[in-house]
Amino acid sequence: MHDTATPTIDYARYDRIRPIRWTGEVLELLDQRRLPFEVDYLACTTSDEVATAIHALAVRGAPAIGIAAAWGTVLAARGVDAADGATALATIEPALHRLNAARPTAVNLAWALARMRRALEAAGSDWREVLEREAHAIETEDLAANRRMGELGASLIAPGSGVLTHCNTGSLATAGFGTALGVIRAGVAQGRIGKVFADETRPWMQGSRLTVWELQQDGIDATLIADAAASHLIKDGQVDWVVVGADRICANGDVANKIGTYQLAISARHHGKKFMVVAPSSTVDMDTASGDLIEIEERDPSELLGVSGSRTVADGIHAWNPVFDVTPAALIDAIVTEKGIVEQPDEDSMRAMFG
Amino acid sequence: MHDTATPTIDYARYDRIRPIRWTGEVLELLDQRRLPFEVDYLACTTSDEVATAIHALAVRGAPAIGIAAAWGTVLAARGVDAADGATALATIEPALHRLNAARPTAVNLAWALARMRRALEAAGSDWREVLEREAHAIETEDLAANRRMGELGASLIAPGSGVLTHCNTGSLATAGFGTALGVIRAGVAQGRIGKVFADETRPWMQGSRLTVWELQQDGIDATLIADAAASHLIKDGQVDWVVVGADRICANGDVANKIGTYQLAISARHHGKKFMVVAPSSTVDMDTASGDLIEIEERDPSELLGVSGSRTVADGIHAWNPVFDVTPAALIDAIVTEKGIVEQPDEDSMRAMFG
Repeated sequence: MHDTATPTIDYARYDRIRPIRWTGEVLELLDQRRLPFEVDYLACTTSDEVATAIHALAVRGAPAIGIAAAWGTVLAARGVDAADGATALATIEPALHRLNAARPTAVNLAWALARMRRALEAAGSDWREVLEREAHAIETEDLAANRRMGELGASLIAPGSGVLTHCNTGSLATAGFGTALGVIRAGVAQGRIGKVFADETRPWMQGSRLTVWELQQDGIDATLIADAAASHLIKDGQVDWVVVGADRICANGDVANKIGTYQLAISARHHGKKFMVVAPSSTVDMDTASGDLIEIEERDPSELLGVSGSRTVADGIHAWNPVFDVTPAALIDAIVTEKGIVEQPDEDSMRAMFG
Repeated sequence: MHDTATPTIDYARYDRIRPIRWTGEVLELLDQRRLPFEVDYLACTTSDEVATAIHALAVRGAPAIGIAAAWGTVLAARGVDAADGATALATIEPALHRLNAARPTAVNLAWALARMRRALEAAGSDWREVLEREAHAIETEDLAANRRMGELGASLIAPGSGVLTHCNTGSLATAGFGTALGVIRAGVAQGRIGKVFADETRPWMQGSRLTVWELQQDGIDATLIADAAASHLIKDGQVDWVVVGADRICANGDVANKIGTYQLAISARHHGKKFMVVAPSSTVDMDTASGDLIEIEERDPSELLGVSGSRTVADGIHAWNPVFDVTPAALIDAIVTEKGIVEQPDEDSMRAMFG
């Protein structure tokens, strides 16, 4: 810990990017497929439109898809005539099922829907208000968790460190501030982080398109590298911490996250550098014992056959496109959630924090 | 070694792709920037056009740029009036210097130019024929070396193995057949290799654009993966050998090769899988003691700001674009050249073979 003389973080300056906006009638999702060139919101008026937006990656990032699904539940209940929550729930269950099926790996989606279901089930005639309040709570709690995690994670980082991150774990992936990118924001604000590197993150280029753009909005200079350059960079001594998010954290501390994360963890360990996972406790899935039980989403191989609509590969070529991988707990130095830090995670330390 | 019952390889079927064609007047270079969609030759009539083609990656791959530079030397001497080779050499030296400066990392370029210089220096009045003969020899020897390396490298691979390769090391990168891809061609022909995987190889996408296309021409099915998916694939048990080429091999067995190679070597070792480097002896540079003495080419960061002309990154973003990295000898199980195999390379075993 290097927790002396910590400057206060001015959170207002990080509020510029809002990926999810609830107008009271419509769910507006910042269309992340069109960033960084167009900042454009997709208006969803039904839960199926939200499910489609999640599946098509218009909204992405484990916490953000949980929040979007919570508001999708509110939209699913629109126009439902029911005397109490349990009756309403029975009516909208098929729509919730479709929301849940939109992406398989991130547990936050199932977690948010389970929380919405529980709230609805317990509600009486005021179930509409209860539902909307619950979605709002999921969103605001996420933002608060991110700020807390940012400070906790940054406390592990020695002044003047270099960090490398992967994929996008920022405001765009959450209610705001971000998970791993929240730690980086806090670390930069506190002078702990001197240099930020971001992987491109093929095939969807979340690093190129989203992360460096997001940090640029906040005046944080980040250097983009090819995914394959990470080990060369780490060997070069420019990285003290690799800091990533998570889509699911198992009971034994294994972590599913964007494809390429595992490779970074191997490399960090090989070079004696540190590896930090940052995610809200809603990402922790104590019902999944270990990483080999996680369903790894494989997306359309066509995502590898070109970039941003520009084709790079000849016809008839096969590709394999798993979009997550599992990093075993043994390669992780710290899992940071809003509940606290688990260092050297294993079954016991995870149970002590989340059991 | 698993060298029993080796089937003969029908080399004629791998002669389809010719990256370099000397017409007697003009050097035709298969323009690799336009593959796989356009198979188009660039006609060079001066050595400076060859230098530009090398720098711009119209021709690439360590052995191929050596061969191109040899023919570039022939073009540089075109129209030179000299009584003997030494006089001609003095005249064309500035042009050879420009050829040599076109790419810094691959030693084959300097090696081919040195060989052309030596031949020219020793030549009398027949220096024009000597020069052309030497360029032709460099090209044909490279093809023969590749066939020999293919069989040597394949002999290390147990039947039914899975292999992963990086960048392009095939016919396109050589006089024909390829280095690492030659081993893969031989291994597939002999039934040793059951499954071939190829990395995309950002930023230039040699794997996507060239390697899988090249193998497709020969009826070899290869599966394309994102660079960041390699460790997930290896962990999955689908890879027994990582097989790559080299741009420079040092006296201690350290290897400079396409960015991302080092990461694969770390991952192969982490998973107890094997790592093979395949390159002609012209890639071995016994004058460079170790990898930290190699100049690593950094190309324009703009190569990371888009793919195939399609921009992915916001304005004002910084990128770092080293295009090679160094894999230490300790992570390499075998270096295969046409002179033989060096297993567990180090200073002593390298000197024994190349000293």
